[in-house]
Amino acid sequence: MISFSCDYLTGACPEILNALNKANSMIHSPYGDDDFSKESQQLILKACGANNGRVWFLSGGTQSNMTFIKACLRPHEGVISTNEAHIATHETGAIESTGHKVLTLPSGTGENAGKITAYQIEQAVIAHMEDSSFEHIVKPKMVYISQPTEIGTIYTPDEIVAIANVCKKYSLYFYVDGARLACAYAHILDFYKTNLFKLLAQSCDAFTIGGSKCGALFGEALVVLNDDINNEFKYIVKQGGALMSKGFIIGVQYSELFKNDLYLNIGKHSNNMAMQIKQIFKDFNFLSNSYTNQQFPIIPLNLYKHLKDNFDFSLWQKLPNDMVTVRFVTSFITKQAHVDALAKAVEDFNNKAN
Amino acid sequence: MISFSCDYLTGACPEILNALNKANSMIHSPYGDDDFSKESQQLILKACGANNGRVWFLSGGTQSNMTFIKACLRPHEGVISTNEAHIATHETGAIESTGHKVLTLPSGTGENAGKITAYQIEQAVIAHMEDSSFEHIVKPKMVYISQPTEIGTIYTPDEIVAIANVCKKYSLYFYVDGARLACAYAHILDFYKTNLFKLLAQSCDAFTIGGSKCGALFGEALVVLNDDINNEFKYIVKQGGALMSKGFIIGVQYSELFKNDLYLNIGKHSNNMAMQIKQIFKDFNFLSNSYTNQQFPIIPLNLYKHLKDNFDFSLWQKLPNDMVTVRFVTSFITKQAHVDALAKAVEDFNNKAN
Amino acid sequence: MISFSCDYLTGACPEILNALNKANSMIHSPYGDDDFSKESQQLILKACGANNGRVWFLSGGTQSNMTFIKACLRPHEGVISTNEAHIATHETGAIESTGHKVLTLPSGTGENAGKITAYQIEQAVIAHMEDSSFEHIVKPKMVYISQPTEIGTIYTPDEIVAIANVCKKYSLYFYVDGARLACAYAHILDFYKTNLFKLLAQSCDAFTIGGSKCGALFGEALVVLNDDINNEFKYIVKQGGALMSKGFIIGVQYSELFKNDLYLNIGKHSNNMAMQIKQIFKDFNFLSNSYTNQQFPIIPLNLYKHLKDNFDFSLWQKLPNDMVTVRFVTSFITKQAHVDALAKAVEDFNNKAN
Amino acid sequence: MISFSCDYLTGACPEILNALNKANSMIHSPYGDDDFSKESQQLILKACGANNGRVWFLSGGTQSNMTFIKACLRPHEGVISTNEAHIATHETGAIESTGHKVLTLPSGTGENAGKITAYQIEQAVIAHMEDSSFEHIVKPKMVYISQPTEIGTIYTPDEIVAIANVCKKYSLYFYVDGARLACAYAHILDFYKTNLFKLLAQSCDAFTIGGSKCGALFGEALVVLNDDINNEFKYIVKQGGALMSKGFIIGVQYSELFKNDLYLNIGKHSNNMAMQIKQIFKDFNFLSNSYTNQQFPIIPLNLYKHLKDNFDFSLWQKLPNDMVTVRFVTSFITKQAHVDALAKAVEDFNNKAN
Repeated sequence: MISFSCDYLTGACPEILNALNKANSMIHSPYGDDDFSKESQQLILKACGANNGRVWFLSGGTQSNMTFIKACLRPHEGVISTNEAHIATHETGAIESTGHKVLTLPSGTGENAGKITAYQIEQAVIAHMEDSSFEHIVKPKMVYISQPTEIGTIYTPDEIVAIANVCKKYSLYFYVDGARLACAYAHILDFYKTNLFKLLAQSCDAFTIGGSKCGALFGEALVVLNDDINNEFKYIVKQGGALMSKGFIIGVQYSELFKNDLYLNIGKHSNNMAMQIKQIFKDFNFLSNSYTNQQFPIIPLNLYKHLKDNFDFSLWQKLPNDMVTVRFVTSFITKQAHVDALAKAVEDFNNKAN
Repeated sequence: MISFSCDYLTGACPEILNALNKANSMIHSPYGDDDFSKESQQLILKACGANNGRVWFLSGGTQSNMTFIKACLRPHEGVISTNEAHIATHETGAIESTGHKVLTLPSGTGENAGKITAYQIEQAVIAHMEDSSFEHIVKPKMVYISQPTEIGTIYTPDEIVAIANVCKKYSLYFYVDGARLACAYAHILDFYKTNLFKLLAQSCDAFTIGGSKCGALFGEALVVLNDDINNEFKYIVKQGGALMSKGFIIGVQYSELFKNDLYLNIGKHSNNMAMQIKQIFKDFNFLSNSYTNQQFPIIPLNLYKHLKDNFDFSLWQKLPNDMVTVRFVTSFITKQAHVDALAKAVEDFNNKAN
Repeated sequence: MISFSCDYLTGACPEILNALNKANSMIHSPYGDDDFSKESQQLILKACGANNGRVWFLSGGTQSNMTFIKACLRPHEGVISTNEAHIATHETGAIESTGHKVLTLPSGTGENAGKITAYQIEQAVIAHMEDSSFEHIVKPKMVYISQPTEIGTIYTPDEIVAIANVCKKYSLYFYVDGARLACAYAHILDFYKTNLFKLLAQSCDAFTIGGSKCGALFGEALVVLNDDINNEFKYIVKQGGALMSKGFIIGVQYSELFKNDLYLNIGKHSNNMAMQIKQIFKDFNFLSNSYTNQQFPIIPLNLYKHLKDNFDFSLWQKLPNDMVTVRFVTSFITKQAHVDALAKAVEDFNNKAN
Repeated sequence: MISFSCDYLTGACPEILNALNKANSMIHSPYGDDDFSKESQQLILKACGANNGRVWFLSGGTQSNMTFIKACLRPHEGVISTNEAHIATHETGAIESTGHKVLTLPSGTGENAGKITAYQIEQAVIAHMEDSSFEHIVKPKMVYISQPTEIGTIYTPDEIVAIANVCKKYSLYFYVDGARLACAYAHILDFYKTNLFKLLAQSCDAFTIGGSKCGALFGEALVVLNDDINNEFKYIVKQGGALMSKGFIIGVQYSELFKNDLYLNIGKHSNNMAMQIKQIFKDFNFLSNSYTNQQFPIIPLNLYKHLKDNFDFSLWQKLPNDMVTVRFVTSFITKQAHVDALAKAVEDFNNKAN
């Protein structure tokens, strides 16, 4: 059975596992004050071209989102996201559990699938300001986007700058969830010749560099450029149970990821495998035009059943007329042979059908 | 200037003011243990035909909503409402401030404007249960409706029973916000020959009997039929800063409202005035088919401007083609002469126009 | 039966009741934008000699405390108080319900009974700063005191200034709960020739001017001098369910209290009655040296039983050797005849005993 | 430099590291549904002699504490602990951040240092019930203890049973924080011939089996015996950002810890090393009579300075007369040679002094 079901099914990539083994028996200062955490912070800030800011290493994505959002917002403030955002749908109300409302805007279609636009955000903020009962309504104070989105689409560099400009204009925090940032990074470097780390560091208050879904054993790097938030952020990390006593475990991993372009290469490889899958299903429609490691072809139920015997992947949505949306996910463990096998299986099906 | 702008612009109706004056210099037990609070509780439970339950007197509607919802839900549970619900839009995130997500469903059209249906609720609950990641999604555990709704429509007795049945089937709490319950009560008694208090007492875990917008100086009666919640509810009222030391002030008012059909008569009168306004604008469309004290005709901007000189009422929404939705609200202070003046002003405008 | 049991047993003093009756049938802008709220705000700020600041009218003390504290503190910050403070003991964890820890310091003895000192506060702040794990510990960010305290003692003007200085030195908010401020105000004016309103306005970020226990029907005026907090405070008031739609009801009352020295006179009268009670029990010890409307003599159980027949007052604490601490509370309803009757009853008991 | 400074300075013990390496490239079901998590759950429940219950694998201790406490308590309920408890002092208000008050009782002296007693708990509960204003006071609903305590002392089996009985009598949840449970387990097995896992499983609603400080790379096993809480607990784990996508990482470790008595042996070894340190300082007083891996001798400042050159350990408290309390911590990395070197260094100091 070949697995395309998700990107957090195994442990770490070999380089990281090796580094963890080496670091295991050394003595490390606790709570993120160890040398590896310091080194990896420097590597990340350098990659971002940032002269300020801090990097916080947390064990998961929901934790990163809720900790940063809680640290920024006053009680009456909320965070804007698409209605499909992870924080709006798949974190069991983590943001609300910290007292804050998620203010959802409908995501778009076509190239805007899974995304919100600077225009939408501005309209929402203006609508709030102009409402005569504005103080009876949660105040929008942050914008949250995922890069790539939940359905694999990408905010272009121009779109990120446009959102950043709206945020500056209306004093909104701008936060980017990069659970699968490696893929977005690789795509944007390749396609737009733009360094996404640098762009985000200039545009956002904070963004995450996902580890768990991008080759690490586990862990997220939360890069906070806004030093007003960095200032007492460690208290809030600790309060949320998100401060690892053995912080070096994540530090070691990010040191490795940011040496020898490992993070970039993991993204490149995942995208490369995914683009081949996109090609395999080129005769079908897709849920979204994804440039990254998640592909959502809309295929006949029969084909789905045929593939299920030898491949592990998700049924995303049942559709009328015996069609289904499915999801294939690639990662550092995906091999060319896996994709080739998938191509062959689809071809076999087509041959049989004709 | 004649005011139709809202139903909380003055103090109490004369009967209540009189009762407050009489009670003012007596000695009362504090924190709701006074004789008036006890008496009014008995009057209300009797009006509800309830053999159990308790009545809690709180100073406002947002407070009632957040206190009851917080008392019922565990951390991962949320409350279903329409996307237009007061808790979803106009309480500055009060529910989220207690840690809980408001799970909105789109309100309907026509007779369902401002409302959600039993069918929608059931579909939402089933969707949650059938999702393979259900534990990553806030669990629906309560249904919140307003009776009448924010736009004056009414849940019929059958609709209330249908929602109650879905709630029982899926172990959901059912809570009814009756900020303007007097109007719904009067309409349902008149039109369906059904006693709404008794119906709600049999159908819901809790409902409010609004005071501030129904003739009282201020205050809401929260009728909790679910004795598991009543059990330690007073702690939670106190914790929210909602336990009045001089609880008798609200008790006195509800004693008065539930004697001599005062609450019913306030509803009747408000509806009567509102139905005449509906008639005045019978040649126009309305935002909703309201049977209660809020009427939302869609009128030409010119007419709006004409009326503005002598009447105070709200501009609800600007529409294309120089049309506007406006809101007229009646209450115990609305006099026949006010409505007659409005009729005359509209007639004058029409005459001039022709 | 003559009642000395507490100061929130009846409605409003006659002047206030009269004013409410007059205002009842007028049309008022809702949510505190009415003329009475504006007028009373001006009267209060003038009494405080303040050129900035705003006055917020809330329905109760717990609500005022939790709303202000929640508005000021970031998630990891806490509020220092004595271990006997109302927020630490008798608000069912209202402060914790907003996510913040109450950091208690032991109250003193003698003249410091019920109080904390500037020195204690400074030591606590230094201890936090010097702890190597300070980020694992809630950060002290506000000081809360009650004036007068829960047991009737008074912070002298010098003590208030000293605490204010420590707060400034360490960037702590300073908040004063004045649930019974009328009594403190009257005592400090008389004894120290100091205007407490002006002193607090210069010293604190915010303080409350209690209404419910000082002659009003109900309500607290929260005077916020810190305009950073005022800025978006209305959102937070609304979120807590503490924004009255008919805000004029409290505004009217405070307009009355701040005309013709009514607030001062209520304090004076209450203190005067209380000082006579102190004199009646001059042969006994007291729980505290109270200068205000609560007196806590420590008397024989026999005397307690003797007085219980004709007077309503609280048993505060049972002590060894058949002694009990009791509490007598005076207010605007206390009459000279009540105190005379008490004096006579004690005298009778003593005569009988000898 | 030999380190006795804490027990979370390195990675995992060799057996665990080995197991992680083996599991690294396998495919695992996410979110704790993998085979290792299932196996380790079975091993733990078997070690507990439990026929019901579930084991939850979380990444840290603060997270375990806040997640379990939040899952159990209603809004007005609080948790009893000693004033020295980790939740009361060193979690930056994590419990308060979930809305709940920590109700502290003073810890004892002598054998009760760092502990609270069943008697204290019962008195606190009775005091609450008998208070006429009990609904204005946070309701005690859970007891939290640490085994061993923060200062290395141990609750005896009888003391645990006594607390469990009080909890049953008053319907309190009983929760045991076992961050260093290996040491308590080893000591109690050796000294009392009692199996602590079985005792806790019979006595508590939940307890943690600490990993990070007991030989694991990181992670805590939260054993919840109360199936009412287990029922929807996964939602709450996810909401707190505490549900690891790659749950197998912790599962693998606990499978290893519960095979071949590894967990027990780590505890035994740590205690053995610690008892030798206790012996080294036998001529001095100690902060507490610790039977576990933390030892707190009170030594002259000169000796402290002398040892500091070659050993890493904590200065716990400065005392008068040039004395200091210090802390030595042992763990699986402590070698006999380390302890011998310490013995020699102390002996050298004594020889020099004489």
